[in-house]
Amino acid sequence: MLRTHTCGELRKEDCGSDVILCGWIQRIRDLGGMTFIDIRDRYGITQLTFSVELNKELYHKAKSLGREYVIKANGTVVERSNKNPHIPTGDIEIIVHSLELLNSSENVPFTIDDDTDGGEELRMKYRYLDIRRNIVRQNLILRHHMASETRNFLHQLDFIEVETPVLIKSTPEGARDFLVPSRMNAGQFYALPQSPQTFKQLLMIGGLDRYFQLVKCFRDEDFRADRQPEFTQIDCEMSFVDKNDIFEVFEGLLSQLFIKLKGFKPDNFIKMSYYEAMKYYGTDKPDTRLGMKFVELNDLAKGKGFRVFDDAEIVAGIKVVQCADYSRKQIDELTEWVKRPQIGAKGLVYVKINTDGTIKSSVDKFFSEDDLKKWAQAFNAVEGDLLLIMAGEKTATRKALGELRLEMGNRLEIGKQERYECLWIEDFPLLEWDEETKRYYAMHHPFTSPLVEDIPKLDTDPATVRANAYDLVVNGIEIGGGSVRIHDKSLQEKMFEILGMTKEEAYRQFGFLMDAFCYGAPPHGGIALGFDRLVALFSGEDSIRDVIAFPKNNAGRDIMIDSPAPIDQKQLKELHLKLDIKK
Amino acid sequence: MLRTHTCGELRKEDCGSDVILCGWIQRIRDLGGMTFIDIRDRYGITQLTFSVELNKELYHKAKSLGREYVIKANGTVVERSNKNPHIPTGDIEIIVHSLELLNSSENVPFTIDDDTDGGEELRMKYRYLDIRRNIVRQNLILRHHMASETRNFLHQLDFIEVETPVLIKSTPEGARDFLVPSRMNAGQFYALPQSPQTFKQLLMIGGLDRYFQLVKCFRDEDFRADRQPEFTQIDCEMSFVDKNDIFEVFEGLLSQLFIKLKGFKPDNFIKMSYYEAMKYYGTDKPDTRLGMKFVELNDLAKGKGFRVFDDAEIVAGIKVVQCADYSRKQIDELTEWVKRPQIGAKGLVYVKINTDGTIKSSVDKFFSEDDLKKWAQAFNAVEGDLLLIMAGEKTATRKALGELRLEMGNRLEIGKQERYECLWIEDFPLLEWDEETKRYYAMHHPFTSPLVEDIPKLDTDPATVRANAYDLVVNGIEIGGGSVRIHDKSLQEKMFEILGMTKEEAYRQFGFLMDAFCYGAPPHGGIALGFDRLVALFSGEDSIRDVIAFPKNNAGRDIMIDSPAPIDQKQLKELHLKLDIKK
Repeated sequence: MLRTHTCGELRKEDCGSDVILCGWIQRIRDLGGMTFIDIRDRYGITQLTFSVELNKELYHKAKSLGREYVIKANGTVVERSNKNPHIPTGDIEIIVHSLELLNSSENVPFTIDDDTDGGEELRMKYRYLDIRRNIVRQNLILRHHMASETRNFLHQLDFIEVETPVLIKSTPEGARDFLVPSRMNAGQFYALPQSPQTFKQLLMIGGLDRYFQLVKCFRDEDFRADRQPEFTQIDCEMSFVDKNDIFEVFEGLLSQLFIKLKGFKPDNFIKMSYYEAMKYYGTDKPDTRLGMKFVELNDLAKGKGFRVFDDAEIVAGIKVVQCADYSRKQIDELTEWVKRPQIGAKGLVYVKINTDGTIKSSVDKFFSEDDLKKWAQAFNAVEGDLLLIMAGEKTATRKALGELRLEMGNRLEIGKQERYECLWIEDFPLLEWDEETKRYYAMHHPFTSPLVEDIPKLDTDPATVRANAYDLVVNGIEIGGGSVRIHDKSLQEKMFEILGMTKEEAYRQFGFLMDAFCYGAPPHGGIALGFDRLVALFSGEDSIRDVIAFPKNNAGRDIMIDSPAPIDQKQLKELHLKLDIKK
Repeated sequence: MLRTHTCGELRKEDCGSDVILCGWIQRIRDLGGMTFIDIRDRYGITQLTFSVELNKELYHKAKSLGREYVIKANGTVVERSNKNPHIPTGDIEIIVHSLELLNSSENVPFTIDDDTDGGEELRMKYRYLDIRRNIVRQNLILRHHMASETRNFLHQLDFIEVETPVLIKSTPEGARDFLVPSRMNAGQFYALPQSPQTFKQLLMIGGLDRYFQLVKCFRDEDFRADRQPEFTQIDCEMSFVDKNDIFEVFEGLLSQLFIKLKGFKPDNFIKMSYYEAMKYYGTDKPDTRLGMKFVELNDLAKGKGFRVFDDAEIVAGIKVVQCADYSRKQIDELTEWVKRPQIGAKGLVYVKINTDGTIKSSVDKFFSEDDLKKWAQAFNAVEGDLLLIMAGEKTATRKALGELRLEMGNRLEIGKQERYECLWIEDFPLLEWDEETKRYYAMHHPFTSPLVEDIPKLDTDPATVRANAYDLVVNGIEIGGGSVRIHDKSLQEKMFEILGMTKEEAYRQFGFLMDAFCYGAPPHGGIALGFDRLVALFSGEDSIRDVIAFPKNNAGRDIMIDSPAPIDQKQLKELHLKLDIKK
């Protein structure tokens, strides 16, 4: 190595040693006759000193350098008179004997500090400079540690990491594939995997028993905020299991990650059915830290002559603790907020349980104080609490109330607490009806098994069939999902039929899997966790871009390397393709 | 879990326990009144017994099952009277109380045995059945363990695994890229990486100091034997290093892998220059286990009137130990072998140092016994040895002699010994001249640094400039290669210029890297090992296909899933493409 030590490791005990450090210049201070250089590498920062008295030439050389220059400094470790308690090397400094300039630097386009002056666009264009910032580097190191702990944990449990192929076949069912034209097979294409789903099932049929992989997956979607065209999954599959075995392994994994990287165990994992989640939180990924479970008031609120409630399929609300002092203006603002097209509610009813014992509501005209007290009881509300109530069609009302609940959580800053509540949402519907295409879609994917007791309803009432599927939700973020799979050929055929595929289509796309079911397929199930999202959760970042080394922007572009880009005509020709673009 | 134990873990100590096993039926034997079923899973095989006396119904049920059926058996562990010392569970068997058929199986297309009757094509089509075979499963498990040990080793040394992007930009320099059309950017394409080369250099510029990744790479080549369009590398980069630091880390890694997975340390790593390798072995990846280092005879063999030698640029040979008893027929056969167009030699001269002290040669007419004795001395040959000698143009002769050396190694079965000799080949030429395109190509890649002392020759004599590049060769197999990189912008510009790129082209393709060199790029270098080949070396397999879960065939097809395949017209249209195929 060009160095004897890193810039983060020298301590008081090293005083007197001759050392060589390499790194970047973080800062140069000249105090007239003395120059101090903070030299930085991945491991820390160390102070170098140059004195005009000791070595005039070296002093002037040091003064002439600039920020982000790369240097190699040879010197002696001495104790600092003016110690810096904020950094681990703050007790010492290096009196430099010789100095080599390894590379110079132009002025960097933004400051290499936690609190940089660079905007996102600029930081992405010069991502290699952004990575020099402590905060970004720490995210990448955290990601490495999480991957490492994940692998070791699963390895201990006899899981085998198997690499599944990246060049596979396009399956129009599901999201849109990225495609790769084949040069050697004119007119044919590979596809990049959206997940290794069928391959991991084949590994179970192959008897591997326990498989995992940290694996890149690809989805050609219209990028919404915080989606990336390529993303990483902790992908997993087990044989001879029911869902509780999978829960156990992944509760163990998450607990291990929390303990190793956060220093504490998360609370117990709660299990909640999809039905309950929708009924009590209006979403299939509730942030239970927020409280504010829905209370339905149909019995208490209907039939009192208030038309909005009387005509509604459902009347339901949330209790916002100790917010009865919300002003008229604040309530009006909330009402406007829920009426925005994104939320789509018709209005908002409030009930204030005032601290003086009175009750004030926007529907005083229709309901007596006694009526409202009964509502308050239904909510277990006490003096000072605020009730926010909506009414209308069931699904829409729950959804809107769920949004309002999240908004109140934000306003009360409950979501900012570093507390983690982990949920399993289970018993999802197997199918979703799509009005536009007039067909069912698989809510998870076509390989998900129905609950055994619901199988008879596949023929009679498919919409009510529940899947043996589950999501893992932490703090309102969907971290992953999985299911027990179909391992029976005829059930898989029926599933494809329900999804509107002809037998031919099904076999053209998934014949290899249905063939495999004929040769002793074991019961199996699995899960995939979104690794980017999991790292973002642990690092406290809002966006997965902040935990990816070289992310793409919302238009799917890598603005650093300027990709995608046009290719040569020769390359197109080799791939047997022509562009089809209207000028 | 549906089971209490795996099929590999029950021992004599478990006798008396009630257990549940799940697995595949390997074999059913009916001995009239007693039926034995061998049940198999990833972990082993256990014998189940059914007796007509104990349970008639169950006995008949067991008899009715078939190979590869998946069953769940509940029973009591008992000691076997007839023990099987060949399997770890051979001391016990299970007297089954109840039996559940989890899935049946059609007749499998080949036998699930180490010595299967299935040809490669059939095994690839039903790869999930092939994976049930012990030998294939063990390869995948070995691969997992090697990946796991590699990661842990590098993690211990402060390397960070960083995921670099898979959707990048096409760079025509080098091998052919796989391309991915962008739907959202009409007429533009991503490319799949042939290696994360530029990204790992940017991580060094970003100050990450030590990076690694087990990473899928892609190359759209005309598939030769034992190439795959997608393959896996152990990719690595370090800052503030010279090549010896990289050697040290990777000698450590390889030693660790040998110790953990083979139980022994390989011999010391030898360092050899490219020049020496070509001079003494005629190849840049010599299998040093074979011995048979070339001896040059120009001084001893020229000027004696034998025209073939006198006209030759070089006369050189190998000593084949104790093969002087080769018959005339065998020598003739070897002569024919070297004259084949693949080898291209004009002929072969032999000298036999017979055990009776006489010397017999095909060039007796031109050389006295004294002459030949001097040759023998040059080879350190003793009685019983055979010398095989070629002559001609230097490069061609060395190459042909190198092939003959390998052939003799095969015939003597030296290559079959389980012994590992590891070499670093260093000081490769920086550039290769291509007669067809009349330009230089980078022998490694355009980012490789020349040796510092050779930089002045870049202008005057580029062909003789040596690179700071190295290959790792084990038993004649190139396991990996790397280099110290250029980290200076003007040197990188010169390199692109020598490779015939205009400044514009160079910036269009690699502008981001040259920009990065302006902001404090540290000295850095790295290496990439071919992980598939390394696993094949450890498993003793000839082909990397045998250590890949779902490999493609030599035409780049996955015959199991039938990919690549035609896509829908709608998909093409979305990608702004038309097929360009002559009907």
